[in-house]
Amino acid sequence: MKKIMVVMGSKSDMPVAEKVEAILKEFEVPYEIEVASAHRNPPKVEAIAKREDVDIFIAIAGLSAALPGVIASHTVKPVIGVPVSGKVNLDSILSIVQMPPGIPVAAVGLDNGKNAALLAIEMLAMKYPELAGKLREYREKMR
Amino acid sequence: MKKIMVVMGSKSDMPVAEKVEAILKEFEVPYEIEVASAHRNPPKVEAIAKREDVDIFIAIAGLSAALPGVIASHTVKPVIGVPVSGKVNLDSILSIVQMPPGIPVAAVGLDNGKNAALLAIEMLAMKYPELAGKLREYREKMR
Amino acid sequence: MKKIMVVMGSKSDMPVAEKVEAILKEFEVPYEIEVASAHRNPPKVEAIAKREDVDIFIAIAGLSAALPGVIASHTVKPVIGVPVSGKVNLDSILSIVQMPPGIPVAAVGLDNGKNAALLAIEMLAMKYPELAGKLREYREKMR
Amino acid sequence: MKKIMVVMGSKSDMPVAEKVEAILKEFEVPYEIEVASAHRNPPKVEAIAKREDVDIFIAIAGLSAALPGVIASHTVKPVIGVPVSGKVNLDSILSIVQMPPGIPVAAVGLDNGKNAALLAIEMLAMKYPELAGKLREYREKMR
Amino acid sequence: MKKIMVVMGSKSDMPVAEKVEAILKEFEVPYEIEVASAHRNPPKVEAIAKREDVDIFIAIAGLSAALPGVIASHTVKPVIGVPVSGKVNLDSILSIVQMPPGIPVAAVGLDNGKNAALLAIEMLAMKYPELAGKLREYREKMR
Amino acid sequence: MKKIMVVMGSKSDMPVAEKVEAILKEFEVPYEIEVASAHRNPPKVEAIAKREDVDIFIAIAGLSAALPGVIASHTVKPVIGVPVSGKVNLDSILSIVQMPPGIPVAAVGLDNGKNAALLAIEMLAMKYPELAGKLREYREKMR
Amino acid sequence: MKKIMVVMGSKSDMPVAEKVEAILKEFEVPYEIEVASAHRNPPKVEAIAKREDVDIFIAIAGLSAALPGVIASHTVKPVIGVPVSGKVNLDSILSIVQMPPGIPVAAVGLDNGKNAALLAIEMLAMKYPELAGKLREYREKMR
Amino acid sequence: MKKIMVVMGSKSDMPVAEKVEAILKEFEVPYEIEVASAHRNPPKVEAIAKREDVDIFIAIAGLSAALPGVIASHTVKPVIGVPVSGKVNLDSILSIVQMPPGIPVAAVGLDNGKNAALLAIEMLAMKYPELAGKLREYREKMR
Repeated sequence: MKKIMVVMGSKSDMPVAEKVEAILKEFEVPYEIEVASAHRNPPKVEAIAKREDVDIFIAIAGLSAALPGVIASHTVKPVIGVPVSGKVNLDSILSIVQMPPGIPVAAVGLDNGKNAALLAIEMLAMKYPELAGKLREYREKMR
Repeated sequence: MKKIMVVMGSKSDMPVAEKVEAILKEFEVPYEIEVASAHRNPPKVEAIAKREDVDIFIAIAGLSAALPGVIASHTVKPVIGVPVSGKVNLDSILSIVQMPPGIPVAAVGLDNGKNAALLAIEMLAMKYPELAGKLREYREKMR
Repeated sequence: MKKIMVVMGSKSDMPVAEKVEAILKEFEVPYEIEVASAHRNPPKVEAIAKREDVDIFIAIAGLSAALPGVIASHTVKPVIGVPVSGKVNLDSILSIVQMPPGIPVAAVGLDNGKNAALLAIEMLAMKYPELAGKLREYREKMR
Repeated sequence: MKKIMVVMGSKSDMPVAEKVEAILKEFEVPYEIEVASAHRNPPKVEAIAKREDVDIFIAIAGLSAALPGVIASHTVKPVIGVPVSGKVNLDSILSIVQMPPGIPVAAVGLDNGKNAALLAIEMLAMKYPELAGKLREYREKMR
Repeated sequence: MKKIMVVMGSKSDMPVAEKVEAILKEFEVPYEIEVASAHRNPPKVEAIAKREDVDIFIAIAGLSAALPGVIASHTVKPVIGVPVSGKVNLDSILSIVQMPPGIPVAAVGLDNGKNAALLAIEMLAMKYPELAGKLREYREKMR
Repeated sequence: MKKIMVVMGSKSDMPVAEKVEAILKEFEVPYEIEVASAHRNPPKVEAIAKREDVDIFIAIAGLSAALPGVIASHTVKPVIGVPVSGKVNLDSILSIVQMPPGIPVAAVGLDNGKNAALLAIEMLAMKYPELAGKLREYREKMR
Repeated sequence: MKKIMVVMGSKSDMPVAEKVEAILKEFEVPYEIEVASAHRNPPKVEAIAKREDVDIFIAIAGLSAALPGVIASHTVKPVIGVPVSGKVNLDSILSIVQMPPGIPVAAVGLDNGKNAALLAIEMLAMKYPELAGKLREYREKMR
Repeated sequence: MKKIMVVMGSKSDMPVAEKVEAILKEFEVPYEIEVASAHRNPPKVEAIAKREDVDIFIAIAGLSAALPGVIASHTVKPVIGVPVSGKVNLDSILSIVQMPPGIPVAAVGLDNGKNAALLAIEMLAMKYPELAGKLREYREKMR
């Protein structure tokens, strides 16, 4: 199993990244976390997007949240986008949801790092069936 | 490879489903299309959500677009939600994006059946590497 | 008189449920309160929706507020939906108001548990005229 | 059984009223339709709101859709509000949903006269059980 | 000179009414303040709207802010509406701005009691020219 | 009686100005219509705003609808603002409603030239009581 | 004088690009037009953003309009962003306006290619004063 | 090099102006800060807009944020508009972005004084190449 790569657009997005991390740890899925702004450091984002040791990207960003889309523009691996709340909220939600035809991003809810991680694990579970079992147990506990 | 199950909330969502279908055909991925409303026919939706022969769900719905979330409530397989445009648009977008923590849905853009299909194929490509090659070719052609 | 069934999508919705409860107690209408998430525990929601001892459902939910609609999908009894406030607000309002044709939900205002309870009592008053009298007295006191 | 009173704020709301009428006819529920603007003719609206021969009001209005609320201010019988679409849409939706605590209105979706009628019949079915049977049949046919 | 009648939909709107009052006192314009909810006490609102000793109404209301429109429905004197802020804000703004053709309300900004008072004084200044002078002085001081 | 000065921000606002004109003609109130953009021709707007022969301004504008506010910045006479519909609508509505404290504008609804004219006549009717009678007749006919 | 580089995210943005072109031709400013999607062809966008023969970029894009921001991430030359209208409109507007601190984009109005071009010429006029004269003439003609 | 003129619509906008100032100081660009409300003091705004010693204007305003547009109406020099946050936010954003064709304003993000200053410096850097070098260094440090 390769890594899930968690990328934040800014250090201030850490509380959302920590929700991602909590789930990935609980499911014992390998991951790595980086801060890399799509706008301030595009070469770093491109380098991350092209890493061979990654299965899925989780990109966390607020405002005009270009990060998930920019990663998606450099890879054909699944990219999950997490909009971060701020003064407007519709900005980050719509920037992540309304991707142009041809370059998909999987948007989850505002600040919803937990769902980003669970969605990534659901994707991995197609290949690693033991994760499907863990997901079913997790659902049971949530009830 | 199992099926991608495409579910529409209403027959009127067919133009969006056809965008999904065009991509799935082009990538030669097995799929099936059904009409099943989360609100009008919950047993049918539940039955579809529990089918063993499915890898990924693509759920297409407008208005208070509950379909992707209802499918997600019955399965731990990945569910992609496509909001359908109407008189308000923020209704279907927010209904699909703003899922509660614990039950993820991967939202794509309004009427963006193409991205739903491509996202599904990106997920499958983790397990079936030949699809990754096709995705890269597809990207090349799009440029 | 059967019960009014008050269902919250999450324990965090309790402050809104308490507004419902205060009115139902004041009018001495029998009720029961449950926590049952449409997305996390659909069988529980379905079981609640099919209970014979219920006259009216009041469903309280935030974010992509599917709970009222999911209950409505399993019953032909009246379902009142109360959107709960959060970071976006239009998400829960529109998810509850914009139900598809055929499956009605009666939406009240954001966090407005009081109106949900009063609306339920107005419905019951068609059958139990003493409640109409109490409602008129309540209105008088409010002036 | 008393009447369901359908009130439109303007003659231009007739297409929505016709959706209400189609359902009420199908269920053989007595009704009456009137045009009465809350803003242009408050005495007529007040007189309608106080009619003894009415069980439930369905009020249809666009823009700053005060009609359902004004009827509700004159009666303790259930009032269902149907927002009518226009250039803004959030105006009529929010005007009808966001009623102040104490005076409930049951909001349904934009232009959704069908759901207004079905909701009214669900309310009546508490008292007239034969309607519950018809509602269940109607649901069956919809699937 | 008759009175400016300031009406609040709820006691909680008092901070906005106090902004109105501060200006009316500064300009020495006679006024009166009342609490009267359009939805909870329509007869009181109607009685206020029909008072002979009033020149202009200032109606302050939040949520589905029907108060200015209901007053306007009972009088042909100018009615100024002040939307009050809350969890949604677009609800009170749009409810007051989007009046139907035929029944005007003069909307001012959210919580902007000061502008409501100044607008009322501008109207009176057509008849009482000394107020125009005071308004010009006030503008000078503001610079 | 002085004039009501009707100012459009652009020739394309003429359909809204014609609704104003129809009412002013019906009430036999003197008026004049000009096209003057707040942004493209500020000296003309300033000159209009300072005209002595005007009682009330009606300013019609779309997009970032600065015209009513710019006129109000140059006069202490009442200014009525009419937002014009376009691709966004909330732009012109909010630009006209959300004036800063100290410089009032009386906002009416989107494209609602009729209400702008009626509001102006209501203001004039404080000084010219015969207009109050005409307004009451007009209301009667509307019912 | 270097070029103004006009970049469209999609061929369907051509009507907006033509508004840009008409102004640039009228002012005899050198320019070039390219189609290059930020999401579908990031290397092309990066190459364009790094061209030495360009003074100012005008980037035209709809939906999640990342193009202006992506160009800005690769250059310290001024980037003007033009949101293109679609089914939502707030998506492209907010995606372009709400750039993160550090990477500016100059947003103009929806579909407002004319203002993008004029803004670019205003920037050039600081260095090439003859353009300032032409801009003043253009303003005169517009009045 | 002439000045960058920073204009606030209200003293309360100072926190945003300070973000502008911090950048301009860091880049050693001459500037001046003034408070001048477009609505309360149009002659002062006009006088500022016509100053000869200014290269670029940065106008900061909330609510119906007319200031950038009013300055732009009096000059053909570049005007950068910074919307200030408040209770609605879409009001100041849309008032600044949605300028009519012919009079451009360069909108930056909500409260984003930093980007306004950087954008101004990018414009100056066309004429003063040493600023381009500083901008590139600044970008490097941000990574």
